[in-house]
Amino acid sequence: MPTFKDYYTVQLHDTDAAGILFFANQLKIVHNVYESMLTKAGFGFQDRFRKRDFFIPIVHAETDFYHPLKDGDTVEIILEIEKVGTTSFTLSYKLTIFDETVVGSAKTVHVTIDPESGKKIPLPGKFKEKLQELACND
Amino acid sequence: MPTFKDYYTVQLHDTDAAGILFFANQLKIVHNVYESMLTKAGFGFQDRFRKRDFFIPIVHAETDFYHPLKDGDTVEIILEIEKVGTTSFTLSYKLTIFDETVVGSAKTVHVTIDPESGKKIPLPGKFKEKLQELACND
Amino acid sequence: MPTFKDYYTVQLHDTDAAGILFFANQLKIVHNVYESMLTKAGFGFQDRFRKRDFFIPIVHAETDFYHPLKDGDTVEIILEIEKVGTTSFTLSYKLTIFDETVVGSAKTVHVTIDPESGKKIPLPGKFKEKLQELACND
Amino acid sequence: MPTFKDYYTVQLHDTDAAGILFFANQLKIVHNVYESMLTKAGFGFQDRFRKRDFFIPIVHAETDFYHPLKDGDTVEIILEIEKVGTTSFTLSYKLTIFDETVVGSAKTVHVTIDPESGKKIPLPGKFKEKLQELACND
Repeated sequence: MPTFKDYYTVQLHDTDAAGILFFANQLKIVHNVYESMLTKAGFGFQDRFRKRDFFIPIVHAETDFYHPLKDGDTVEIILEIEKVGTTSFTLSYKLTIFDETVVGSAKTVHVTIDPESGKKIPLPGKFKEKLQELACND
Repeated sequence: MPTFKDYYTVQLHDTDAAGILFFANQLKIVHNVYESMLTKAGFGFQDRFRKRDFFIPIVHAETDFYHPLKDGDTVEIILEIEKVGTTSFTLSYKLTIFDETVVGSAKTVHVTIDPESGKKIPLPGKFKEKLQELACND
Repeated sequence: MPTFKDYYTVQLHDTDAAGILFFANQLKIVHNVYESMLTKAGFGFQDRFRKRDFFIPIVHAETDFYHPLKDGDTVEIILEIEKVGTTSFTLSYKLTIFDETVVGSAKTVHVTIDPESGKKIPLPGKFKEKLQELACND
Repeated sequence: MPTFKDYYTVQLHDTDAAGILFFANQLKIVHNVYESMLTKAGFGFQDRFRKRDFFIPIVHAETDFYHPLKDGDTVEIILEIEKVGTTSFTLSYKLTIFDETVVGSAKTVHVTIDPESGKKIPLPGKFKEKLQELACND
């Protein structure tokens, strides 16, 4: 159940002169859902930047395009927590338009690091628990 | 040899509040090198948009991050034509900073379509030949 | 009354390494409200691009920053139609955060052109009427 | 003489579905020249973010569009230091394409602040001197 779902309407600035969503912006759009999920889970970026307790850089991202998205298209984005590891976690995303056409998908792999040293650190306990709880509910 | 090489200096607008390159912008940056390669090969986008003979949407993209990039970092980007197929081609990219540290990599898969119908079409002959010629020289 | 109001939560990709909204993105954000207004008024961009009846490029934009916006900040944006002329119209925007602090403002001037020739043309009748109706209600 | 001059080739990701540069990206493009000027003047952003001695947010920006820019167009951008005040300075930009057509202009007003308090502070002495020196040479 608690996968995260959100909606996004493609804006003019997301498109390019070919008339469709500029490919890299698909990752920008799914990242919005991840941000929103973090905030709802009580781990919003604003806290990270203030506390500088841990940062969560992305080490891998991939995305597929099945159908072109145009300015004004509203897309439903479903985020699932695919895997929670020791120092990393993996999210997957599915993008669908109104008539149930799956238009794209994406995957992002995140690691936790110490903001000062930049070194990898284990997922902080409460953060890991929260991700696991959300993942289990999928 | 004729892989394509270009340089890019990370701009403030490429970074985010975590102080590093926003992940999706790595794909934006490597795409610049692809655009430049197309133009040098005589197949610039501007011609495509005017002639509307064929469009080249990206159907898959992936990218890895080995080292954070900061505002002002200059990165060398090497593009290689990895594979030239019937209706698609695959490019790979390697991003390196001045001290030879490989900071990232990426791959993009492109298909050729008819701009009006949106249907997949074979790579136009001269375009395919050009890509093959450039790929062989790698 | 019918000014247009919308809300926007600053995303990580809108910020830069200084930890705040990258300045040019303030114009990107207010443009979203304009797009939404056009769609609600029955003149969405998607129709323009399909019909190629008239395009509406921006010829002037200006924006002021009174207070820094950070990742996760939700801003209320009010759009007002300031002036409807013969071949142009002017929009103004006010950005406010939750505690009523006005954080920024913007203005954009738009002209109508023929998409093929690129020449300025009068605002199409029904479009002008709609803008005037919405402006009067302010 | 030492105005700063740089060149920029419009990339696909700078354009939108109307086939031209997305308006707000004109400010992004001129900001690149400002960044480059700061670096050459010995005051690059990377130092600011590391030392956190002073930040330079933009409090006002405006830009005009005289001619549409398309993907692949190369534009010459000239930056001039228009005014150096006590706590602020003003830059102006002119964008020209190859045949000498002025395609756009912009102006940005910058203030210096203390990164911790966010309060306005006088331009640090050496930075002010450098800007004045560069401005006089215009």
